[in-house]
Amino acid sequence: MTHRPPPGRRADYAAFVAHTTRWNDNDVYGHLNNVVHYALFDSTVNGWLIDRGLLDPVGGAQIGLVAETGCRYHGEMGYPDRISAGLRVARLGSSSVRYEVGLFRNDDDTAAAEGFFVHVYVDAATRRPAPLSPALRAALETLVRPGAG
Amino acid sequence: MTHRPPPGRRADYAAFVAHTTRWNDNDVYGHLNNVVHYALFDSTVNGWLIDRGLLDPVGGAQIGLVAETGCRYHGEMGYPDRISAGLRVARLGSSSVRYEVGLFRNDDDTAAAEGFFVHVYVDAATRRPAPLSPALRAALETLVRPGAG
Amino acid sequence: MTHRPPPGRRADYAAFVAHTTRWNDNDVYGHLNNVVHYALFDSTVNGWLIDRGLLDPVGGAQIGLVAETGCRYHGEMGYPDRISAGLRVARLGSSSVRYEVGLFRNDDDTAAAEGFFVHVYVDAATRRPAPLSPALRAALETLVRPGAG
Amino acid sequence: MTHRPPPGRRADYAAFVAHTTRWNDNDVYGHLNNVVHYALFDSTVNGWLIDRGLLDPVGGAQIGLVAETGCRYHGEMGYPDRISAGLRVARLGSSSVRYEVGLFRNDDDTAAAEGFFVHVYVDAATRRPAPLSPALRAALETLVRPGAG
Repeated sequence: MTHRPPPGRRADYAAFVAHTTRWNDNDVYGHLNNVVHYALFDSTVNGWLIDRGLLDPVGGAQIGLVAETGCRYHGEMGYPDRISAGLRVARLGSSSVRYEVGLFRNDDDTAAAEGFFVHVYVDAATRRPAPLSPALRAALETLVRPGAG
Repeated sequence: MTHRPPPGRRADYAAFVAHTTRWNDNDVYGHLNNVVHYALFDSTVNGWLIDRGLLDPVGGAQIGLVAETGCRYHGEMGYPDRISAGLRVARLGSSSVRYEVGLFRNDDDTAAAEGFFVHVYVDAATRRPAPLSPALRAALETLVRPGAG
Repeated sequence: MTHRPPPGRRADYAAFVAHTTRWNDNDVYGHLNNVVHYALFDSTVNGWLIDRGLLDPVGGAQIGLVAETGCRYHGEMGYPDRISAGLRVARLGSSSVRYEVGLFRNDDDTAAAEGFFVHVYVDAATRRPAPLSPALRAALETLVRPGAG
Repeated sequence: MTHRPPPGRRADYAAFVAHTTRWNDNDVYGHLNNVVHYALFDSTVNGWLIDRGLLDPVGGAQIGLVAETGCRYHGEMGYPDRISAGLRVARLGSSSVRYEVGLFRNDDDTAAAEGFFVHVYVDAATRRPAPLSPALRAALETLVRPGAG
């Protein structure tokens, strides 16, 4: 626990997606249950891709499989907070990408939680790793932040 | 099914609360799972109350227990749709209230789903029905719509 | 509220499906949030159908759309309770079925909640109502309980 | 991705908790959404503690705050699979514990996913780190597995 890096700031992220919270996001302690953060990571990454026409869950030739996820919790959030999710790409491989997401409570500039999300792209039919399409790679390059991850 | 009333419009509701959707709200058919609607009803009613200082989940003297809920599904919604939830009060009893919520997809004027939510207020300690506080009753009266429910 | 029927018993149901609860099913009051009941209704009906080869979410020619759902809450349940869900069919139409589900806490014989779930079957391609298949109808007839609904 | 350790086996875990899955656990790809795994981790750890009288969410003097979580996904699972969750303790500090959970699909002996969950214990009133109680420490020592983590 000693070498834990300090919480990130909004300036450390490249794009932002807004989320509302729900009554049942809170657990018995009255704060956001640790599971909800992952639902927001998922929705941040996929929402950014769908908005740009880069993810077609039903008919796409490639599927992004989730290989690994993780989250560090810096502070509490809870319904009815608004959450602003910052997104960046920390590593862009030939067929994989590591997204990092910071969750900011209401207008806070310091992240209440930060997580990552590794997608490995596979061919939808064969399920074997497939190189990122040029359009996807070009879009993700705009999210790369040096020094992250 | 024959006598089903037509879907409501935005003008049938008294107040509105905005919700974002999440990737895991969609089920295998690619649309909002029927369960999510209830999470939005809950969050609409409680959010409206919390914003006005009328619901204190931890320290309040009264608790609103959920006695009955229901939903009619008119049309499909799905992530990443934005959802606008219309709220009204259809019946205001001495210790109970029937809320009705209409869910509107993006900018649609016709509800994609409509539900209700009956709260019975009880004393937090004895769990026996307790009359609505004057402040709560006064606020809920602003949501009453004639002919609803 | 006055004419509310008494809670059902296990003998009022035709088949049973076992469910476990989860930490995040509980809300800030320490009991099962009202939304979770619907996730269990869904899983009870669809689980019973899948076990009998009567529901193929991906490749089936027919889809059961959810037209209406509802729940009456009789008593509290909460994680880590085990929940036994009783299932019966209250109405079997040409292209629709009304399921009723009772949720029993641990070994209780009296339902803690009872709900319903109306499925309308449509052709997967045209989305128009389609008669229940003979195999589905024969299976559902074993769940019909006189007087229910 | 190259140095990823092989998936664990049941023999690598010290205790097991059974979970049922739900229809809405599956996402549009027809498999368990990556978020659900964390709901099962949470429920595995807390369920094991509650069963032994070691976690009282409402009146306890200590609270276990979640500091960090993570998951590696080895293979797919989906409703209506049954899931068996293996639990072990990989590190037991003075006021913190690192749990590791393996999720096994139906009767599989190889984990479909493996995660961890770091709890830091704090005083419920002051929210400052507090040493694990002797009863909790003694119980957790039975879950320690050498070489894990």
